[in-house]
Amino acid sequence: MEFSSKLIEKAVNEMSQLPGIGKRTALRLVLHLLKQPKEQTGFLAQAIVTMREDIKYCDSCHNISDSVLCEICSNKNRNHQIICVVEDIRDVMAIENTGQFRGIYHVLGGKISPIDGVGPSQLNITTLVQKVKSGSVNEIIFALSSTMEGDTTNFYIYKQIGDSEIIVSTIARGISVGDELEYADEVTLGRSILHRVPFEKSLKNN
Amino acid sequence: MEFSSKLIEKAVNEMSQLPGIGKRTALRLVLHLLKQPKEQTGFLAQAIVTMREDIKYCDSCHNISDSVLCEICSNKNRNHQIICVVEDIRDVMAIENTGQFRGIYHVLGGKISPIDGVGPSQLNITTLVQKVKSGSVNEIIFALSSTMEGDTTNFYIYKQIGDSEIIVSTIARGISVGDELEYADEVTLGRSILHRVPFEKSLKNN
Repeated sequence: MEFSSKLIEKAVNEMSQLPGIGKRTALRLVLHLLKQPKEQTGFLAQAIVTMREDIKYCDSCHNISDSVLCEICSNKNRNHQIICVVEDIRDVMAIENTGQFRGIYHVLGGKISPIDGVGPSQLNITTLVQKVKSGSVNEIIFALSSTMEGDTTNFYIYKQIGDSEIIVSTIARGISVGDELEYADEVTLGRSILHRVPFEKSLKNN
Repeated sequence: MEFSSKLIEKAVNEMSQLPGIGKRTALRLVLHLLKQPKEQTGFLAQAIVTMREDIKYCDSCHNISDSVLCEICSNKNRNHQIICVVEDIRDVMAIENTGQFRGIYHVLGGKISPIDGVGPSQLNITTLVQKVKSGSVNEIIFALSSTMEGDTTNFYIYKQIGDSEIIVSTIARGISVGDELEYADEVTLGRSILHRVPFEKSLKNN
């Protein structure tokens, strides 16, 4: 792609380093900014720089937070004995939206993935293991994606926790609510059957 | 969407004002920036702000340029008597990529679109009409999108030019090269037949 201006070229190159944004999309975004008032570009630039410079992470759960402890960890009405282990902040938001979980979280910051060069030491695993070993935890729930990397991470943490006498559970895999059985893949359907729940229990959540 | 940090919320809100970027995508981009070195966010912010502040437009064709005249307008090897009228810089890049056009361009900066509040006065039409009336132009080629707005803009400019004795043409509409006839829509196929070209002429471009 040849540009008539070095300034445009540089802006497009920077933009296109964002995930899912190619050169064409980046050019569209840049041309959009050119048509908007100058201030808007300033606000955008300011917002991302401030965010990157001033961001803090919760000391306890590693969730993104504006203070030392995030709102969830500092909430005394939540059950601090149940920890839900998630990959990143988006998963916290998704689970919070369900309104079904009243414990606290632990954000790993990724999954073990040798192919991407991510090992256990780059993730917030040590602090989780410490929390479990300190004896203040009753149950941990693995809520990582159901992929090879997710399963590996679950297993690694499980091994690290060792013989601590706590409940270790993982979120249920099965047919999505509203989905038809015939379109489900075999693995999912198989898990649904293996991990069936007592009918009376399933009634309670409706 | 509830965020655990005001900084994230602000960055996501600014990002999601870009076209085609919703809140979810914006969050994904913001989280990506958080995982990258701090400098990268700085470079991105700097690039878009510099671009927006320092951008110049070619005095002659209104294309984006780093100098008073763009590279195309200042190129003496190009035919300055043929002007190709386009909507924005992307169209200039697309036509330049074909290597089929050796004239110069005139960038309107949009199309007449009452529904979006864009009238002729917001576009670079006056300077085009002046150029034509000054007598230095032989032919103008309309290369706007084949939409209601594009056709309206073409017609408006055509009326403004009035009785100047120049050739006014529009790029050919027809079946895309490589496309099968049966899948073409009727209007396009109809235009292809109406605007058929002598077979010998079509051979030359292969």
